[in-house]
Amino acid sequence: MEKQKRNVLFALSASKELGKRVARHLNMPLSDVEIKHFADGETMVKAVNSIRNKHVFVIQSTSKPVNENLMELLVAIDSFRRASAKSITVLLPYYGYARQDRKTIGREPITCKLVADLLEKAGATRIAIIDLHSTQAQGFFDVPVDTCSASYAVLDAMVREAGTKNTVIVSPDYGSVKRARDLSLLYNLPVAILDKRRPEPNKAEISNVLGYVRGKNAIIIDDMIDTGGTLIAACKILKQKGVKRIFAGATHGLFSRDAVANFNKALKDKYIDKLYISNTLDQVYTLGIEGLKIVDISSLLADILDVYMSDSNKSITQIYKKLTHAKQKRRKSWK
Amino acid sequence: MEKQKRNVLFALSASKELGKRVARHLNMPLSDVEIKHFADGETMVKAVNSIRNKHVFVIQSTSKPVNENLMELLVAIDSFRRASAKSITVLLPYYGYARQDRKTIGREPITCKLVADLLEKAGATRIAIIDLHSTQAQGFFDVPVDTCSASYAVLDAMVREAGTKNTVIVSPDYGSVKRARDLSLLYNLPVAILDKRRPEPNKAEISNVLGYVRGKNAIIIDDMIDTGGTLIAACKILKQKGVKRIFAGATHGLFSRDAVANFNKALKDKYIDKLYISNTLDQVYTLGIEGLKIVDISSLLADILDVYMSDSNKSITQIYKKLTHAKQKRRKSWK
Amino acid sequence: MEKQKRNVLFALSASKELGKRVARHLNMPLSDVEIKHFADGETMVKAVNSIRNKHVFVIQSTSKPVNENLMELLVAIDSFRRASAKSITVLLPYYGYARQDRKTIGREPITCKLVADLLEKAGATRIAIIDLHSTQAQGFFDVPVDTCSASYAVLDAMVREAGTKNTVIVSPDYGSVKRARDLSLLYNLPVAILDKRRPEPNKAEISNVLGYVRGKNAIIIDDMIDTGGTLIAACKILKQKGVKRIFAGATHGLFSRDAVANFNKALKDKYIDKLYISNTLDQVYTLGIEGLKIVDISSLLADILDVYMSDSNKSITQIYKKLTHAKQKRRKSWK
Amino acid sequence: MEKQKRNVLFALSASKELGKRVARHLNMPLSDVEIKHFADGETMVKAVNSIRNKHVFVIQSTSKPVNENLMELLVAIDSFRRASAKSITVLLPYYGYARQDRKTIGREPITCKLVADLLEKAGATRIAIIDLHSTQAQGFFDVPVDTCSASYAVLDAMVREAGTKNTVIVSPDYGSVKRARDLSLLYNLPVAILDKRRPEPNKAEISNVLGYVRGKNAIIIDDMIDTGGTLIAACKILKQKGVKRIFAGATHGLFSRDAVANFNKALKDKYIDKLYISNTLDQVYTLGIEGLKIVDISSLLADILDVYMSDSNKSITQIYKKLTHAKQKRRKSWK
Amino acid sequence: MEKQKRNVLFALSASKELGKRVARHLNMPLSDVEIKHFADGETMVKAVNSIRNKHVFVIQSTSKPVNENLMELLVAIDSFRRASAKSITVLLPYYGYARQDRKTIGREPITCKLVADLLEKAGATRIAIIDLHSTQAQGFFDVPVDTCSASYAVLDAMVREAGTKNTVIVSPDYGSVKRARDLSLLYNLPVAILDKRRPEPNKAEISNVLGYVRGKNAIIIDDMIDTGGTLIAACKILKQKGVKRIFAGATHGLFSRDAVANFNKALKDKYIDKLYISNTLDQVYTLGIEGLKIVDISSLLADILDVYMSDSNKSITQIYKKLTHAKQKRRKSWK
Amino acid sequence: MEKQKRNVLFALSASKELGKRVARHLNMPLSDVEIKHFADGETMVKAVNSIRNKHVFVIQSTSKPVNENLMELLVAIDSFRRASAKSITVLLPYYGYARQDRKTIGREPITCKLVADLLEKAGATRIAIIDLHSTQAQGFFDVPVDTCSASYAVLDAMVREAGTKNTVIVSPDYGSVKRARDLSLLYNLPVAILDKRRPEPNKAEISNVLGYVRGKNAIIIDDMIDTGGTLIAACKILKQKGVKRIFAGATHGLFSRDAVANFNKALKDKYIDKLYISNTLDQVYTLGIEGLKIVDISSLLADILDVYMSDSNKSITQIYKKLTHAKQKRRKSWK
Repeated sequence: MEKQKRNVLFALSASKELGKRVARHLNMPLSDVEIKHFADGETMVKAVNSIRNKHVFVIQSTSKPVNENLMELLVAIDSFRRASAKSITVLLPYYGYARQDRKTIGREPITCKLVADLLEKAGATRIAIIDLHSTQAQGFFDVPVDTCSASYAVLDAMVREAGTKNTVIVSPDYGSVKRARDLSLLYNLPVAILDKRRPEPNKAEISNVLGYVRGKNAIIIDDMIDTGGTLIAACKILKQKGVKRIFAGATHGLFSRDAVANFNKALKDKYIDKLYISNTLDQVYTLGIEGLKIVDISSLLADILDVYMSDSNKSITQIYKKLTHAKQKRRKSWK
Repeated sequence: MEKQKRNVLFALSASKELGKRVARHLNMPLSDVEIKHFADGETMVKAVNSIRNKHVFVIQSTSKPVNENLMELLVAIDSFRRASAKSITVLLPYYGYARQDRKTIGREPITCKLVADLLEKAGATRIAIIDLHSTQAQGFFDVPVDTCSASYAVLDAMVREAGTKNTVIVSPDYGSVKRARDLSLLYNLPVAILDKRRPEPNKAEISNVLGYVRGKNAIIIDDMIDTGGTLIAACKILKQKGVKRIFAGATHGLFSRDAVANFNKALKDKYIDKLYISNTLDQVYTLGIEGLKIVDISSLLADILDVYMSDSNKSITQIYKKLTHAKQKRRKSWK
Repeated sequence: MEKQKRNVLFALSASKELGKRVARHLNMPLSDVEIKHFADGETMVKAVNSIRNKHVFVIQSTSKPVNENLMELLVAIDSFRRASAKSITVLLPYYGYARQDRKTIGREPITCKLVADLLEKAGATRIAIIDLHSTQAQGFFDVPVDTCSASYAVLDAMVREAGTKNTVIVSPDYGSVKRARDLSLLYNLPVAILDKRRPEPNKAEISNVLGYVRGKNAIIIDDMIDTGGTLIAACKILKQKGVKRIFAGATHGLFSRDAVANFNKALKDKYIDKLYISNTLDQVYTLGIEGLKIVDISSLLADILDVYMSDSNKSITQIYKKLTHAKQKRRKSWK
Repeated sequence: MEKQKRNVLFALSASKELGKRVARHLNMPLSDVEIKHFADGETMVKAVNSIRNKHVFVIQSTSKPVNENLMELLVAIDSFRRASAKSITVLLPYYGYARQDRKTIGREPITCKLVADLLEKAGATRIAIIDLHSTQAQGFFDVPVDTCSASYAVLDAMVREAGTKNTVIVSPDYGSVKRARDLSLLYNLPVAILDKRRPEPNKAEISNVLGYVRGKNAIIIDDMIDTGGTLIAACKILKQKGVKRIFAGATHGLFSRDAVANFNKALKDKYIDKLYISNTLDQVYTLGIEGLKIVDISSLLADILDVYMSDSNKSITQIYKKLTHAKQKRRKSWK
Repeated sequence: MEKQKRNVLFALSASKELGKRVARHLNMPLSDVEIKHFADGETMVKAVNSIRNKHVFVIQSTSKPVNENLMELLVAIDSFRRASAKSITVLLPYYGYARQDRKTIGREPITCKLVADLLEKAGATRIAIIDLHSTQAQGFFDVPVDTCSASYAVLDAMVREAGTKNTVIVSPDYGSVKRARDLSLLYNLPVAILDKRRPEPNKAEISNVLGYVRGKNAIIIDDMIDTGGTLIAACKILKQKGVKRIFAGATHGLFSRDAVANFNKALKDKYIDKLYISNTLDQVYTLGIEGLKIVDISSLLADILDVYMSDSNKSITQIYKKLTHAKQKRRKSWK
Repeated sequence: MEKQKRNVLFALSASKELGKRVARHLNMPLSDVEIKHFADGETMVKAVNSIRNKHVFVIQSTSKPVNENLMELLVAIDSFRRASAKSITVLLPYYGYARQDRKTIGREPITCKLVADLLEKAGATRIAIIDLHSTQAQGFFDVPVDTCSASYAVLDAMVREAGTKNTVIVSPDYGSVKRARDLSLLYNLPVAILDKRRPEPNKAEISNVLGYVRGKNAIIIDDMIDTGGTLIAACKILKQKGVKRIFAGATHGLFSRDAVANFNKALKDKYIDKLYISNTLDQVYTLGIEGLKIVDISSLLADILDVYMSDSNKSITQIYKKLTHAKQKRRKSWK
């Protein structure tokens, strides 16, 4: 009761479904928000009821259409600030532009930092992000930021199915090796790497495998699936190299361009045996991928919000420990 | 030569055509800019050649799709700043969100100010805007801002056709009375007002005319045409009230929703005799409105940029004087 | 009790009387503040008692002498901030420099924005303003700002006297048409406009009336009366045009230069039948205008402060609704 | 010529005379500035001609009426900034509020810092101040600040008259001992201190002398003369203690309250033999103090501005060296 | 209990001992903080337990090694801010770089201001400092700052020993005269000044005494003892001038270079009879100065923190009054 | 000549030698800077000659003692800013705290971002960094930042010796795989990875090799060598796995703790055959490692500064192209 008196929770257009689930876990309602799109394409967002002196929490994935969803979020923050909210915590299940986090060649923007600046300028006073592409981007914010990984939950679902006995974690490229390695430690699994060259963005050309994969089950897990081209190509190679079953997964399911068709084909053709995605993007429920396993991470978000809304000494670190401890216990019982 | 050595001029997606015309007036090339839209909807902008220590000028109308065009502009500014541009002047032929410039009821955003903040945060060091919806919004910026009206040019084209003898300037609602009055002084024309109520946004209900219009030619000029509903309804009323010919016009031609069809019908049915629009939005060239008069304002933009790029004592005020002086001279000769 | 423990209320030099009335409505005392003017003209302001960790509310109209009153306010805010106030809400019954809100010609300052910047830089964390000259100026602030109109109360007093049957609202110039129109809707009154030219500041030259006024009672209401020259001239014209009785009024009564003498003459000569002013400026009590009707708006300010000081879900929007609802009910019963 | 092309120099209301003298030394004209005071007490300042891309220099003493002069300066800076000046250097011959530079008891403002913040917020990009009350206040600014002392010039004039043989520098209170000591080193003069208690601001009660003064000529020099009460009382005591001739002086001549009458009496009654003041305040020319010696420091200001406007390697340090070197040479020749 | 729930108190490396004493007075524990020094010299600080939504208080003297201690403090503040502390109050018993508070000659840094900027940038929201070298430096901060003097306590210890009858307060140079005078008023003691020249930093050359010292006990009190060269030289002179007993003291005991040896010799040779130092620096407990009197000021710090942590109307001013009142009472009883 | 008139170049304590070399390449002198360390450990830095209106460039590695060198740099920047430098470009051959670029567990600081904030707050207007630990940290800066890699030069020296025929690039851990891969593409070399677990910081436990190394020459290249423990352990394993010759290298040679002794032993025992380090840290010249190959990168720094100081269209991208192009040409000729 007290919690609902001091806090209000909003879900914007890109996270309506996820917001509902989080609110259910928190046992508090989503507050009403009016979102209008004018004839000329402009966006207007406002709280329906007074939020004066309230702690405001707002959930929005800045996924496709990324500029629309980002601008909707910025307008919402501006309206909450001007309506005298006491604080504005932005919960980004998916943070768009996260990959533009550095200049790889001259004169490129660092849009991931620009977005951080825009969120702060609009009035965000705290940020929480799920599976931020590079953890260094935490430092792009001056306000406190918490990042949390949903990949534990996704991996957990995959390992339950694949078992740990004859399983290897495969990194589909060099950029994801670190992540694969870190996750492999939780279940004490071996690691293999696909050595490939990517001559142009969104094109992939795979060559070679470092590590042993023949006759094994492979788990491939990434932070996001965009067009999925690299991943599907990797799975084809792996099957050619003698991998038994392939469990592919990611936290964020963007599924851009022809990804849905390609994954349906890959699943039908058994290049991929099972595909796992968390529900950081509402669209996963309506993609139409046959046999897609959706891992619900709304209780994780609710746990984070509960720490924020609580007066007691709860911490985000405890959430992490709970996540990894559960796995470690399970690992033992499975062996 | 010297001008091209120190300055570079870019035109972004929404102002490619206008940018070309401006560049031609300035006798300097548009610089190459790479604009990419990734599969996931993210935007990337970068200068193709070095802009280190250059004064950068960038033209972009933040018209529909407004959030896409705005974000493209912000990313461009960020990339120019990080590429060590000496200054970044943003020329907005049309400034989206300009109408959300105040809270009319509780908890609304002031998105016009938010956009100003975002532009400055991204790194804009000077702003120029054509026909900003309310001049007070100049004060939303901390960096120097120049606003200039293209309505002189549009009105001029209308008066050339309508003559000044039997002509009245009509304001289609109470919000535009001030503008109508100010413009009427240039040619010493009388003013009339349509007294209407607008119960909801984008709907209009017109009632009554203050001032004399019967048997006269009417000029209706606004800063922008959005859906055009109000304007067309006004013209119908005016014709019913006995107006002879109607010359309608605006600086910014948004033509949202069914505007194109409605104006084609209004022109065919002679509710509107002639329609004038400036080319602040590139789309005016491809709208498909039969008999639309396009007023080219690229030389005005070039004049402004020339003041910025010049070392001499030129001023924006001189441009204004030239605009209004030309009219006043003509007025005399016409009588 | 609790309210007094967490909040303190100060009234500075220009709003001593109004502050007292507001405090009485709030049932809490004005806190002691020491205001010194040194021999060299410097101002010093300090709280007499500790305000550490308190929410501070300070009332000050930045009216004439505007620079003195503004600087006194800035010094007060600085002292409150350095004395560790938890928040500093500035209540400006009258906001000086509000009319310098845009550059009308080149090289002008935008002092209305400058004042907003100075208030924020000094340490104000929330602002409330009564009848701000242009509502766009809300966007000049980055801290939350609430604007509220006292013109409802002034108009209400006028309509009680004038009745609604044979009454027209007259706008004394084109700049005030929008305001006149908006207020006319509350009582469903017709509108007329005086069409005049103002060749120089503070001089007026009136020509012409749009709309029907002969034989009617006229209500002329503006946001402020400065020298009053325009208003008195307008009233003369209206009487010549056959208006029966004239009820003139405004929220802010500056009465600069010879305004007091001129209004006394106008009232005596019956150009103006009744004159209404709210008490946003303390000076209205000592002006010496024969028969001036003072509309006390201290309960409105107290309502606003009560929302700020309250923990419950009260909102400024509710105050607005109460104001307009009262009028709408009355409108019906009067007919 | 080149200097005038890139730089413009303005003098505001409080420094018209001084500005003229500085301009003459610089061999460049004062630029035209329009300063208006509206009927309601508001101030408007604007440059008459274009200043786009110019380095702007503005001279204004924020002396009595301090709030008027300060606000005029802030408005001027705002207008210069919005008019696209390249930089804005503010030259403050006298910096008002300089003495409110710390909290001596609880809840006091630090108005000297507030003024620094306001100047920077308005848009000043560099500051120069003559005889700032405490040198620590340099650190109140984030923009570069140069402080320079005119007391060398004032002291020089006094020593020329008093000679160095039988002369002692007397500090009128403990707060000025450091300054007296530093200046005494230039001419190798002994120092004495008046030991007094000041129970309230602007009142003084003097007791006692530390050091030898009987039969000597005394030089008393301070940074400013406000009401002068302390100084005159000190001089009376010194004469009672057997001082021969008293040369009193200061950089800034505020002469608040009855100071003019009191000094005229003190000079007539020979408590003070000669009084020296620099012309940092224009008012010194019209005070009407019989026999006041005015020390013109406009060439010092011109030297500073010349460093700013110059492309060569000139420095403020060189000006200092010139000032003190001149004295040291003279000292030798006088002995 | 409630106090411990909302507040946490940390002591960093340079103030471990003082922190313990303060915590004991406050009856609350010091919270655990992990301070690591990596092999490459980098520092890492983090709170061991959650501090989310807590008011954090951190004690650290930025004494020698000053850059290490300052950086440790900045890193700690950054970590507390990112860990979502509600507020961060920094208590600096000794503020390093306090003497670099102005440019005495060209091109010097104002490091005292730089340090203030760094503390605020890192995230400090309130500052408390003991015996800040110049009170003007309060204005270097934008966040609220409280300064408090421990010299009352040190002086009190000295006066208890020296008595007030035949005692004079001696300022060792001109820069400290103001402080000596202010303190002398508390016990109504006479003042004398040593007139010396200091040709270079850390070198002193003493000449002369203003005031009567022969046959008296002398109290010399400063804000800090650095190398102590000036002080010891002053004491030698005073003994030569016939002073009976010398009580030397300061708030901050830096004891740089050979200070310990020099003071041991001075105490042995009876140039100094007793030496008093407060414990703002932990090192005073381990210096090894024979017969050093350590004045414990931890209860003063606890009083300040108690005001900050309390909800009631306590104020820092009350602490001051208590300090000076105690002295004034004692003064009477002693006579 | 012109270049020296507008630009000044300083080298601070940690980069005196490197600065000299860079200056020689640029054919301009290092400007004189005074660096003092006071008795109490405080640092003072100032330019000896006027830098008013100059572009200032300052070289300083913030290596061990990192807090001393960082603070010296901050003080220098503050002094340059206050001395009216036109711009301040900081060139960091080595950026201390670069590895603390994210929170790996709760409540950690992000000191790499804090340092960026401190540099900007002090007044840096542009930054250049050699081999920044993670490229994402570019986004920690709001001012333009250029990063450049010296590893091309180091690798080039290694490949000249090792040849490309029978050579493999080995990543000593998972964190460096990406870097190893990117460099391997330049010479088309295969990659191998050492799969190890690091239970605690600065301890390493190596297990396993992914990829083929037996009978090959191995090149191990990292961004920095700290204690070197991981690297030496890796080399032992590699030799056990049958590697022929090992060429180890890094850009930054920190050589903390016992690194010098350990590397001398490893070189003597032939675990490492050749060791390569660039001269980003001056200390590499005096470490005393037998047979250390120092790769001089001063011409690279000079190339960067030349772009900054130049008016022409040079760009940092060109430097990159030159670096990699040279390699690609050589690669062909070697085969």
